[in-house]
Amino acid sequence: MNSEAIKKLFDQVKRGKLSPDEAVQRLKHLPFEDLGFANVDHHRTLRVGMPEVIFGPGKSPQQFAQIFARLADHGHNVLATRVSAEQFRAVKRKFRKAELHELARAITLTQDKTIYGKGTIIVVSAGTGDIPVAEEALVTAQIMGNQVKHVYDVGVAGIHRLLARREVLTQARVLIVCAGMEGALPSVVGGLVGVPVIAVPTSVGYGASYEGVAALLGMLNSCASNVSVVNIDNGFGAGYVASIINRLE
Amino acid sequence: MNSEAIKKLFDQVKRGKLSPDEAVQRLKHLPFEDLGFANVDHHRTLRVGMPEVIFGPGKSPQQFAQIFARLADHGHNVLATRVSAEQFRAVKRKFRKAELHELARAITLTQDKTIYGKGTIIVVSAGTGDIPVAEEALVTAQIMGNQVKHVYDVGVAGIHRLLARREVLTQARVLIVCAGMEGALPSVVGGLVGVPVIAVPTSVGYGASYEGVAALLGMLNSCASNVSVVNIDNGFGAGYVASIINRLE
Amino acid sequence: MNSEAIKKLFDQVKRGKLSPDEAVQRLKHLPFEDLGFANVDHHRTLRVGMPEVIFGPGKSPQQFAQIFARLADHGHNVLATRVSAEQFRAVKRKFRKAELHELARAITLTQDKTIYGKGTIIVVSAGTGDIPVAEEALVTAQIMGNQVKHVYDVGVAGIHRLLARREVLTQARVLIVCAGMEGALPSVVGGLVGVPVIAVPTSVGYGASYEGVAALLGMLNSCASNVSVVNIDNGFGAGYVASIINRLE
Amino acid sequence: MNSEAIKKLFDQVKRGKLSPDEAVQRLKHLPFEDLGFANVDHHRTLRVGMPEVIFGPGKSPQQFAQIFARLADHGHNVLATRVSAEQFRAVKRKFRKAELHELARAITLTQDKTIYGKGTIIVVSAGTGDIPVAEEALVTAQIMGNQVKHVYDVGVAGIHRLLARREVLTQARVLIVCAGMEGALPSVVGGLVGVPVIAVPTSVGYGASYEGVAALLGMLNSCASNVSVVNIDNGFGAGYVASIINRLE
Amino acid sequence: MNSEAIKKLFDQVKRGKLSPDEAVQRLKHLPFEDLGFANVDHHRTLRVGMPEVIFGPGKSPQQFAQIFARLADHGHNVLATRVSAEQFRAVKRKFRKAELHELARAITLTQDKTIYGKGTIIVVSAGTGDIPVAEEALVTAQIMGNQVKHVYDVGVAGIHRLLARREVLTQARVLIVCAGMEGALPSVVGGLVGVPVIAVPTSVGYGASYEGVAALLGMLNSCASNVSVVNIDNGFGAGYVASIINRLE
Amino acid sequence: MNSEAIKKLFDQVKRGKLSPDEAVQRLKHLPFEDLGFANVDHHRTLRVGMPEVIFGPGKSPQQFAQIFARLADHGHNVLATRVSAEQFRAVKRKFRKAELHELARAITLTQDKTIYGKGTIIVVSAGTGDIPVAEEALVTAQIMGNQVKHVYDVGVAGIHRLLARREVLTQARVLIVCAGMEGALPSVVGGLVGVPVIAVPTSVGYGASYEGVAALLGMLNSCASNVSVVNIDNGFGAGYVASIINRLE
Amino acid sequence: MNSEAIKKLFDQVKRGKLSPDEAVQRLKHLPFEDLGFANVDHHRTLRVGMPEVIFGPGKSPQQFAQIFARLADHGHNVLATRVSAEQFRAVKRKFRKAELHELARAITLTQDKTIYGKGTIIVVSAGTGDIPVAEEALVTAQIMGNQVKHVYDVGVAGIHRLLARREVLTQARVLIVCAGMEGALPSVVGGLVGVPVIAVPTSVGYGASYEGVAALLGMLNSCASNVSVVNIDNGFGAGYVASIINRLE
Amino acid sequence: MNSEAIKKLFDQVKRGKLSPDEAVQRLKHLPFEDLGFANVDHHRTLRVGMPEVIFGPGKSPQQFAQIFARLADHGHNVLATRVSAEQFRAVKRKFRKAELHELARAITLTQDKTIYGKGTIIVVSAGTGDIPVAEEALVTAQIMGNQVKHVYDVGVAGIHRLLARREVLTQARVLIVCAGMEGALPSVVGGLVGVPVIAVPTSVGYGASYEGVAALLGMLNSCASNVSVVNIDNGFGAGYVASIINRLE
Repeated sequence: MNSEAIKKLFDQVKRGKLSPDEAVQRLKHLPFEDLGFANVDHHRTLRVGMPEVIFGPGKSPQQFAQIFARLADHGHNVLATRVSAEQFRAVKRKFRKAELHELARAITLTQDKTIYGKGTIIVVSAGTGDIPVAEEALVTAQIMGNQVKHVYDVGVAGIHRLLARREVLTQARVLIVCAGMEGALPSVVGGLVGVPVIAVPTSVGYGASYEGVAALLGMLNSCASNVSVVNIDNGFGAGYVASIINRLE
Repeated sequence: MNSEAIKKLFDQVKRGKLSPDEAVQRLKHLPFEDLGFANVDHHRTLRVGMPEVIFGPGKSPQQFAQIFARLADHGHNVLATRVSAEQFRAVKRKFRKAELHELARAITLTQDKTIYGKGTIIVVSAGTGDIPVAEEALVTAQIMGNQVKHVYDVGVAGIHRLLARREVLTQARVLIVCAGMEGALPSVVGGLVGVPVIAVPTSVGYGASYEGVAALLGMLNSCASNVSVVNIDNGFGAGYVASIINRLE
Repeated sequence: MNSEAIKKLFDQVKRGKLSPDEAVQRLKHLPFEDLGFANVDHHRTLRVGMPEVIFGPGKSPQQFAQIFARLADHGHNVLATRVSAEQFRAVKRKFRKAELHELARAITLTQDKTIYGKGTIIVVSAGTGDIPVAEEALVTAQIMGNQVKHVYDVGVAGIHRLLARREVLTQARVLIVCAGMEGALPSVVGGLVGVPVIAVPTSVGYGASYEGVAALLGMLNSCASNVSVVNIDNGFGAGYVASIINRLE
Repeated sequence: MNSEAIKKLFDQVKRGKLSPDEAVQRLKHLPFEDLGFANVDHHRTLRVGMPEVIFGPGKSPQQFAQIFARLADHGHNVLATRVSAEQFRAVKRKFRKAELHELARAITLTQDKTIYGKGTIIVVSAGTGDIPVAEEALVTAQIMGNQVKHVYDVGVAGIHRLLARREVLTQARVLIVCAGMEGALPSVVGGLVGVPVIAVPTSVGYGASYEGVAALLGMLNSCASNVSVVNIDNGFGAGYVASIINRLE
Repeated sequence: MNSEAIKKLFDQVKRGKLSPDEAVQRLKHLPFEDLGFANVDHHRTLRVGMPEVIFGPGKSPQQFAQIFARLADHGHNVLATRVSAEQFRAVKRKFRKAELHELARAITLTQDKTIYGKGTIIVVSAGTGDIPVAEEALVTAQIMGNQVKHVYDVGVAGIHRLLARREVLTQARVLIVCAGMEGALPSVVGGLVGVPVIAVPTSVGYGASYEGVAALLGMLNSCASNVSVVNIDNGFGAGYVASIINRLE
Repeated sequence: MNSEAIKKLFDQVKRGKLSPDEAVQRLKHLPFEDLGFANVDHHRTLRVGMPEVIFGPGKSPQQFAQIFARLADHGHNVLATRVSAEQFRAVKRKFRKAELHELARAITLTQDKTIYGKGTIIVVSAGTGDIPVAEEALVTAQIMGNQVKHVYDVGVAGIHRLLARREVLTQARVLIVCAGMEGALPSVVGGLVGVPVIAVPTSVGYGASYEGVAALLGMLNSCASNVSVVNIDNGFGAGYVASIINRLE
Repeated sequence: MNSEAIKKLFDQVKRGKLSPDEAVQRLKHLPFEDLGFANVDHHRTLRVGMPEVIFGPGKSPQQFAQIFARLADHGHNVLATRVSAEQFRAVKRKFRKAELHELARAITLTQDKTIYGKGTIIVVSAGTGDIPVAEEALVTAQIMGNQVKHVYDVGVAGIHRLLARREVLTQARVLIVCAGMEGALPSVVGGLVGVPVIAVPTSVGYGASYEGVAALLGMLNSCASNVSVVNIDNGFGAGYVASIINRLE
Repeated sequence: MNSEAIKKLFDQVKRGKLSPDEAVQRLKHLPFEDLGFANVDHHRTLRVGMPEVIFGPGKSPQQFAQIFARLADHGHNVLATRVSAEQFRAVKRKFRKAELHELARAITLTQDKTIYGKGTIIVVSAGTGDIPVAEEALVTAQIMGNQVKHVYDVGVAGIHRLLARREVLTQARVLIVCAGMEGALPSVVGGLVGVPVIAVPTSVGYGASYEGVAALLGMLNSCASNVSVVNIDNGFGAGYVASIINRLE
């Protein structure tokens, strides 16, 4: 390790050949390579309330349970997404309080019940097929310390279903809107409210829906200006972004 | 030309060797190749009220005017799409009654004012940018003998604008809905009415709208079941399909 | 719920402070948000003759049978698409008259035999591989109260097969044309008839057919102007659109 | 207009045949179609501080100036995007205080200097080529009443340039990050901060950048969870979304 | 059926009111619709030597065997492509002479051993992975009555392997060249010979080969002018086209 | 240059240390690198009758004329494709017999009028917009020594136009079929004849034709087995392939 | 075989009619076709140290083991990629020293331990999901005679993890960087070092990652100029290219 | 700036409360944010011999000349790519030794003639249309201090042209191979040599070449293992990568 130059600086200060102020100046002009600092972000304050997250696929139940246990030890909440029943069973043995969210294919372990969010996050879905993605967003937002509601099955081809729930929608501080097929719902919802809308395209559909491409393009081209978009089926990402927004003071 | 076999049949009938009935039977068993008929469709009856159509691009004003004149001689209405100002001037010299529809970039010559359509065709557009395509559809439907109305600038991000015109929409026998960007309008309109909706994706938008692809995919994946789709920016096609439907008895 | 303002109107009318006419005027100027109406479309008149529809995939046989039973209670016809054999068995136990259409992968329960369509819908398929999609369209059109015929296996590479059936085609009020591979059949059929043609691209083909993209693009670019298009493999949508057209008076 | 049923309700109330409470209940069960309400959203309160926005392309200088004037009359701030020099000259004649933002290709008219945002929005760009899009975002955020800073030319291939500005980045309540080519900057920035990052893919690049597709896909697949995405080159949208977030209390 | 008009012509000839020549002229001016001819192509002479072809997928062994038997009855050769082992067993029971070509996944029944081709067709493959497609082409060409040779595993990254077989290549009247991955082989072969080259992209490869798209585009853009292309993995099509060319006199 | 090893062989033969037979054997085992032969293909016999070809774009009139002159000196026919008017003028000064084919954007210089083709090549086009590509194919086939006919404007939406020319089509030894939009014509033509069909997708169309992609995919997926395909708008390639086929004995 | 002309040359030399020098000259002017040499590249010197390589998929364990044995007989190292457990067992029976690299899905047999590389190759991966591809690259580089290190799980969303390993990275003579999702890591690494970076997109990701397309486009558009790219998931190719570079003297 | 913590460390050392060694340890545990170092990479040693590079597009002649002058002041070589004639004239006024490379559209100013490369870089192009990209690569490699040769117009459809230059190719330490259309040349060249091949797809071609996509995919799927790829038309990148490799000791 290459910290000779730095040690030399301290030596010169000790021996009075350099004032602390001069030393700070010189330190700043040392090339970055010579420093070798790694322990960045140790105290990252906003980490508070963020859950530890595990992505399930490709991990054996044993591996999965070990990682889960290690993360749980930090005392934070734990969230695992896209899990299997086997992975849940392996976790459940050790953590009786771990919960399986079947539709969301997620496991949560709640160790911190503080509400960090300033308002309510509402998760909206267009069709029943979009609910698994919506639930992943909902579970993510909950485990990150938010009050969450949902409004499901209010797709645009029956616009009155959406309008009937309008009063609920206006209670949200942040909205997450999940839709497959033509992905039009975020545009309509975005036009009804004045808060941020996180749009999640889902891979629901067939034929020329192209596993969510149609919905993704629809949302990127939304004529409502308060809409931003996350990846296809990325309920977790939407829940995370919404939570980050909702904890802004 | 290969009509020997047929002539022989007639000869045999003339000479009494074959009854007319037998001859008809034999004629039906001759291979198609031997007939060589070309003058199919001379009397195609539904042709009535169909305009003659010219596609403007790639034709010099002179060529354009000549074709226009030749078609006008049939006595039918004439429609030219995607025309230039020069093409219109060339036509105008000879046909004082020819009209230029600037937004639609179309020329019409009305020689037959019969209303062939049984009901009203309503053309709807999402944004002001979609109006040229909507107008092409509207002009097409008019010159084909339909009563036409329009409802423009009722995009889904301000859903109340659309709902405010709902009563008008329900007067249509056929609807044409033009939208670019996310192409969500046909889904919403389709859910409000019980008649056929012809969706026209437009190339309006930027970035990931891909010149109408986002709208096209959105419309093909519409969750409203009474929607069918024509090509991007194909206002003429939509007007034509709507007219064909509207003249069904 | 936010209906105070409306109640106040009624109170004022009751107390004679407002005439009914004035009240109607004021009601119209209340912002939509204050109304909270949800029970829109209860009596939607064109609903008559529309089947209730279930999309099979992702539903357990039990769930499926329950939904089926609930819809059947309305007394309408019931249509279920993309069903499994298990789903059919679960339904069959309770509804002896329920029919499985194997090729179409559809279940129907006919409780209303009224013919709502004004003419005949003819379903055409290019190859034998397209027949499942064609049958889905055919079953949909039948359960919606139409007289339906079909003309199968008349692809464009053997054009005489199609021409031989020409007389049948001209009997249609609406045509549904299903084709995979190059998707050329709707263009040829569209040129032979003067009625609306609903084109259905199918995912039949291999290599660069891209699961129906080649056929879809072919149909969108049809040089026949009376053709409109629905999603890939969307036989149900085609049957629905055709029925909506066919019941126009 | 179809308000007979409503009038009848008021009549019955007037004549004492119905109590106001009963009338409200009945009103709720009337089909939506019969109401015909249009004046939705008149008082939309969050409108406060939102600028009126004009999209420049396709408007003649005269049209443009007229629309500008009409919007300016509301007393709100006015923002026009993607404007031409001619459009600006036409506006400048009437509005001496209108400002042209050359890089952003935007015009602003500031009539309301209230700061609505609760914190600072920081706009980051990867390369110098991305600056026009970044400036559109910056101007949008400013005219919507936010304190805004920028950090430009800190692309990931010279990571020290970004790290050197880290302290500035941590002052943001919301970040907008614009990048073309591989679009990697939002991922790196997202990992450095704990606030929402709005990613804007730009069409900067050549060859297989495909006018922003490479950057768009990169951002949608960001491994930083606090990133959401708007359309390619959509600086306006990013500024709008960031403003909506920044005014959350 | 609509043959009244024709019958009337025969009657007039019989009664001497029309000469046979006049009748032929009039017949030619009857609209096509009135003829109703279906039995086109009965005697299509070039049919000689063409095998009857069955596409295996989606057919049960029983169905498959029945179709096979019916076609075999015509006395022509029979070719079935993309067959399963079960389909072969079902056929083998009845047709002892039927042969299974394992690599090509094809069944042939040779009932006509005539050589219709004027020269030799040579099938070339780039890698060993391309051999199944190459064999389908080879088997197709053989059963259609051609002398066929093959040159396998001569991909362009080891150009000497190809050059070493150059003399063989120059004996071909038609060449079929199968290649996956970058699909460069047809260009090189096309430059070495002066006869038609039918290029077959194969779906061999991984990553950005996109199931044959890379090879397909490579072949369409071949800088050798004597190359034309068939669909991805379409060995049958290549064998058929090559045979059609090879039997030209 | 590395021919030492070879020289040594000859020396050993000269000195009688090696018999000529032994020397030939040894020569064959020398690595290819040591030979350095370049003069491959000097006598390529099938070159006879092949025109020299120049691709116009990107060449100044002077450069173009120089290349043209150099090629003309070989005594072969010369063909230049995608030429400009300026390029033609520069050539015309020196070669009075050079001809400009305006529609085909080609220049030919005929110095060899031998007919090398064994039969007739027929060029077919779907619409008038496809004629420039068709003409490039036609001019190419002519300058390569073929008898050529054409059948234009016989698109599939008016199938009778094509059927009316059927007798002409059957006179072809090779067919070239050019079509844009849905690209269906080669499938229909392929089904009518028993000779090779070279399909040329053209970039004619708009919207979702994607500059010829729709037509290209349609042709690759043709259900007629005697169709092979060249690149979009590649009339030259089609003419070349057809000529190569037509000169097969 | 066509070596008459060559034999004649030797005869003439033997008989003194031609000097060896003249013979060499004449030999050079013989057309390549007449030589028929196949045994090119026997002594290709750089072959030294190159392993023999087998691609596992599609080979039965028996076939696989036979090929493996044949290659091992050359005395070179042997590398097999994308192998199955069965293939390894079949090999292991005969070659006790063969090693299975589970993560890399590769088998190696080390018969030559020479270090051919001049420096160290370092393999970097963004996430844990990219490790199988990284390991394939690592194993390939090792078996080709290189000193190899790895730095895993240093994705750009936690840039400090990468910076903490910076000193290690600067020890590399060549770097291989594997990343899925947005594929940003090679750009950042490329900016930190001054040696060649081989970027490998991996198919890790979901939604709009499109099996590695997002990463591939990101890498092709890298703003770091010392980056070149291989195919998606092509760890072998990256290891091979890096080795070729590392053995340059 | 946040360097209080650091200053405090120095103070403690000065006052003897902390040994220099302890101070170094503590310094390493300070969070990165507190350091604020920006002057990274001042002495980056491999920078020696790297030219300063300007990307021309979007810069006015004046801006361009100013940037050029500032970079020239460093005493390094200067390279500008994709320049215009105006940009060159603006530079030429001040720098008489600046050279314009017309085909490469590049300007160079050579102030350092040291040869840093250890061997020869050879630039190969498939067609004449690829030469501008090849020249950009060549000029880049030269200005970075390499001996460079080129071999142009050796596309794979005339493989003998390439083989004739084989001896030259084997002299390269690194090869750059530029090709459009099917992009097959790098595969063939890669098979002939044992050194690194940098493949550059060019946008040369038409129709389904898709501005270089066909070539790009071809190169990514190259069956030669020593090939890596840069972006479409990225001659500069290829020259840079090749130089970095060639200066490896």
